[in-house]
Amino acid sequence: MYFWENVNVVSLQDFRPGIKSRAEIGDRLIMALMEIGPGKEDPGHEHPFEQCGIVTEGTIEMFVGDQRQLLKPMDAYFIPAGAFHGWKTFGTAVKILDVSVKQA
Amino acid sequence: MYFWENVNVVSLQDFRPGIKSRAEIGDRLIMALMEIGPGKEDPGHEHPFEQCGIVTEGTIEMFVGDQRQLLKPMDAYFIPAGAFHGWKTFGTAVKILDVSVKQA
Repeated sequence: MYFWENVNVVSLQDFRPGIKSRAEIGDRLIMALMEIGPGKEDPGHEHPFEQCGIVTEGTIEMFVGDQRQLLKPMDAYFIPAGAFHGWKTFGTAVKILDVSVKQA
Repeated sequence: MYFWENVNVVSLQDFRPGIKSRAEIGDRLIMALMEIGPGKEDPGHEHPFEQCGIVTEGTIEMFVGDQRQLLKPMDAYFIPAGAFHGWKTFGTAVKILDVSVKQA
Protein backbone atom coordinates (compact mmCIF):
# COMPACT_ATOMS: atom_id res chain seq x y z
CA MET A 1 0.00 0.00 0.00
CA TYR A 2 1.58 3.23 -1.13
CA PHE A 3 -1.19 5.50 0.16
CA TRP A 4 -3.17 5.70 3.41
CA GLU A 5 -6.28 7.82 3.08
CA ASN A 6 -6.99 9.89 6.21
CA VAL A 7 -4.69 8.44 8.83
CA ASN A 8 -7.23 9.28 11.52
CA VAL A 9 -9.71 6.71 10.21
CA VAL A 10 -7.28 4.02 9.03
CA SER A 11 -8.08 0.72 10.74
CA LEU A 12 -5.52 -0.36 13.31
CA GLN A 13 -4.50 -3.57 15.05
CA ASP A 14 -3.63 -4.22 18.68
CA PHE A 15 0.08 -3.67 19.13
CA ARG A 16 0.69 -3.44 22.88
CA PRO A 17 -1.74 -2.94 25.79
CA GLY A 18 -3.42 0.39 25.16
CA ILE A 19 -1.68 0.92 21.83
CA LYS A 20 -3.02 0.14 18.38
CA SER A 21 -0.91 0.40 15.28
CA ARG A 22 -0.58 -0.06 11.58
CA ALA A 23 2.82 -0.05 9.99
CA GLU A 24 4.47 -0.02 6.61
CA ILE A 25 7.85 -1.68 7.05
CA GLY A 26 10.42 -1.04 4.37
CA ASP A 27 14.06 -1.97 4.09
CA ARG A 28 15.33 1.01 6.09
CA LEU A 29 12.21 2.98 7.08
CA ILE A 30 9.23 2.08 9.25
CA MET A 31 6.13 4.28 8.98
CA ALA A 32 3.68 3.53 11.77
CA LEU A 33 0.36 5.03 12.64
CA MET A 34 -0.14 4.61 16.40
CA GLU A 35 -3.19 5.17 18.54
CA ILE A 36 -2.20 5.48 22.19
CA GLY A 37 -5.01 5.23 24.70
CA PRO A 38 -5.65 7.72 27.52
CA GLY A 39 -3.56 7.64 30.68
CA LYS A 40 -0.59 5.78 29.21
CA GLU A 41 3.05 6.62 29.80
CA ASP A 42 6.49 5.67 28.57
CA PRO A 43 8.79 7.04 31.28
CA GLY A 44 11.69 6.98 28.87
CA HIS A 45 13.95 4.87 26.73
CA GLU A 46 16.61 5.30 24.07
CA HIS A 47 17.71 3.53 20.92
CA PRO A 48 20.57 3.97 18.48
CA PHE A 49 18.38 5.11 15.58
CA GLU A 50 16.47 8.28 14.80
CA GLN A 51 12.72 8.64 15.02
CA CYS A 52 10.34 11.42 14.06
CA GLY A 53 6.68 12.04 13.41
CA ILE A 54 3.63 14.19 13.77
CA VAL A 55 0.56 14.20 16.00
CA THR A 56 -2.63 13.84 13.98
CA GLU A 57 -5.26 13.67 16.76
CA GLY A 58 -5.34 14.38 20.50
CA THR A 59 -2.66 15.67 22.83
CA ILE A 60 0.53 13.99 24.08
CA GLU A 61 3.35 15.19 26.28
CA MET A 62 6.76 14.19 24.97
CA PHE A 63 10.25 14.76 26.20
CA VAL A 64 13.53 14.43 24.34
CA GLY A 65 16.62 14.93 26.46
CA ASP A 66 15.82 17.89 28.71
CA GLN A 67 13.13 19.36 26.43
CA ARG A 68 9.52 18.62 27.33
CA GLN A 69 6.55 19.71 25.22
CA LEU A 70 2.81 19.24 24.95
CA LEU A 71 2.11 18.24 21.36
CA LYS A 72 -1.19 18.79 19.57
CA PRO A 73 -2.34 17.89 16.05
CA MET A 74 0.11 19.19 13.43
CA ASP A 75 2.99 19.38 15.93
CA ALA A 76 6.03 17.37 14.82
CA TYR A 77 8.96 15.84 16.69
CA PHE A 78 12.45 14.66 15.82
CA ILE A 79 14.35 12.34 18.17
CA PRO A 80 18.10 12.06 17.52
CA ALA A 81 19.77 8.67 17.71
CA GLY A 82 20.63 7.85 21.30
CA ALA A 83 18.50 10.61 22.84
CA PHE A 84 16.55 9.58 25.93
CA HIS A 85 12.86 10.22 25.25
CA GLY A 86 9.40 9.33 26.47
CA TRP A 87 5.76 10.39 26.42
CA LYS A 88 2.55 10.58 28.42
CA THR A 89 -1.09 10.76 27.38
CA PHE A 90 -3.96 12.33 29.32
CA GLY A 91 -7.76 11.98 29.20
CA THR A 92 -8.17 11.03 25.56
CA ALA A 93 -6.52 8.85 22.95
CA VAL A 94 -3.80 10.26 20.73
CA LYS A 95 -2.84 9.41 17.18
CA ILE A 96 0.63 9.90 15.79
CA LEU A 97 2.25 9.10 12.48
CA ASP A 98 5.69 7.91 13.48
CA VAL A 99 8.70 7.19 11.28
CA SER A 100 11.85 5.48 12.42
CA VAL A 101 14.96 3.97 10.90
CA LYS A 102 14.95 0.21 10.63
CA GLN A 103 18.24 -1.22 11.77
CA ALA A 104 20.16 -3.05 9.08
CA MET B 1 15.08 21.56 17.61
CA TYR B 2 13.25 18.47 18.79
CA PHE B 3 9.75 19.91 18.32
CA TRP B 4 8.05 21.89 15.55
CA GLU B 5 4.84 23.52 16.73
CA ASN B 6 2.11 23.51 14.04
CA VAL B 7 3.92 22.52 10.89
CA ASN B 8 1.50 24.62 8.84
CA VAL B 9 2.85 27.87 10.31
CA VAL B 10 6.53 26.92 10.69
CA SER B 11 8.67 29.44 8.79
CA LEU B 12 10.29 28.02 5.67
CA GLN B 13 13.20 28.90 3.41
CA ASP B 14 13.47 28.88 -0.38
CA PHE B 15 14.61 25.45 -1.47
CA ARG B 16 13.99 25.24 -5.22
CA PRO B 17 11.87 27.43 -7.51
CA GLY B 18 8.32 27.21 -6.18
CA ILE B 19 9.31 25.05 -3.23
CA LYS B 20 10.04 26.19 0.31
CA SER B 21 11.39 23.88 2.93
CA ARG B 22 12.64 23.41 6.43
CA ALA B 23 14.51 20.26 7.32
CA GLU B 24 15.90 18.43 10.29
CA ILE B 25 18.81 16.35 9.04
CA GLY B 26 19.97 13.52 11.23
CA ASP B 27 22.50 10.77 10.68
CA ARG B 28 20.13 8.47 8.82
CA LEU B 29 16.79 10.32 8.69
CA ILE B 30 15.76 13.59 7.04
CA MET B 31 12.49 15.17 8.16
CA ALA B 32 11.47 17.98 5.83
CA LEU B 33 8.47 20.23 5.78
CA MET B 34 7.88 21.30 2.19
CA GLU B 35 5.55 23.91 0.75
CA ILE B 36 5.04 23.33 -2.95
CA GLY B 37 3.48 26.17 -4.89
CA PRO B 38 0.50 25.85 -7.24
CA GLY B 39 0.91 24.42 -10.72
CA LYS B 40 4.18 22.57 -10.07
CA GLU B 41 5.02 19.09 -11.25
CA ASP B 42 7.66 16.44 -10.82
CA PRO B 43 7.01 14.09 -13.75
CA GLY B 44 8.86 11.31 -11.99
CA HIS B 45 12.13 10.14 -10.56
CA GLU B 46 13.50 7.33 -8.43
CA HIS B 47 16.16 6.88 -5.79
CA PRO B 48 17.56 3.89 -3.92
CA PHE B 49 16.12 4.91 -0.55
CA GLU B 50 12.65 4.95 0.95
CA GLN B 51 10.57 8.03 1.49
CA CYS B 52 7.25 8.64 3.22
CA GLY B 53 5.15 11.43 4.63
CA ILE B 54 1.82 13.08 5.11
CA VAL B 55 -0.02 15.99 3.53
CA THR B 56 -0.81 18.70 6.08
CA GLU B 57 -2.40 21.36 3.86
CA GLY B 58 -3.79 21.52 0.32
CA THR B 59 -4.11 18.83 -2.32
CA ILE B 60 -1.43 17.06 -4.34
CA GLU B 61 -1.59 14.26 -6.89
CA MET B 62 1.08 11.65 -6.40
CA PHE B 63 1.96 8.48 -8.20
CA VAL B 64 4.13 5.60 -7.06
CA GLY B 65 4.72 2.91 -9.66
CA ASP B 66 1.35 2.42 -11.36
CA GLN B 67 -0.73 3.78 -8.46
CA ARG B 68 -1.92 7.36 -8.72
CA GLN B 69 -3.83 9.18 -5.97
CA LEU B 70 -5.09 12.61 -5.04
CA LEU B 71 -3.84 13.29 -1.50
CA LYS B 72 -5.51 15.68 0.93
CA PRO B 73 -4.56 16.71 4.47
CA MET B 74 -4.06 13.65 6.70
CA ASP B 75 -3.39 11.36 3.74
CA ALA B 76 -0.03 9.56 4.00
CA TYR B 77 2.29 7.98 1.43
CA PHE B 78 5.09 5.44 1.47
CA ILE B 79 7.50 5.19 -1.45
CA PRO B 80 9.58 2.00 -1.57
CA ALA B 81 13.26 2.22 -2.47
CA GLY B 82 13.69 2.30 -6.22
CA ALA B 83 10.02 2.97 -7.00
CA PHE B 84 9.41 5.52 -9.74
CA HIS B 85 7.29 8.32 -8.28
CA GLY B 86 6.22 11.89 -8.92
CA TRP B 87 3.63 14.52 -8.05
CA LYS B 88 1.62 17.44 -9.35
CA THR B 89 -0.02 20.39 -7.61
CA PHE B 90 -3.07 22.33 -8.77
CA GLY B 91 -4.49 25.78 -7.97
CA THR B 92 -3.17 26.18 -4.44
CA ALA B 93 0.00 25.51 -2.48
CA VAL B 94 0.46 22.22 -0.67
CA LYS B 95 2.32 21.39 2.50
CA ILE B 96 3.76 17.98 3.23
CA LEU B 97 5.84 16.60 6.06
CA ASP B 98 8.26 14.30 4.27
CA VAL B 99 10.70 11.80 5.77
CA SER B 100 13.43 10.03 3.85
CA VAL B 101 16.45 7.88 4.54
CA LYS B 102 19.75 9.69 4.38
CA GLN B 103 22.27 7.64 2.46
CA ALA B 104 25.27 6.54 4.52
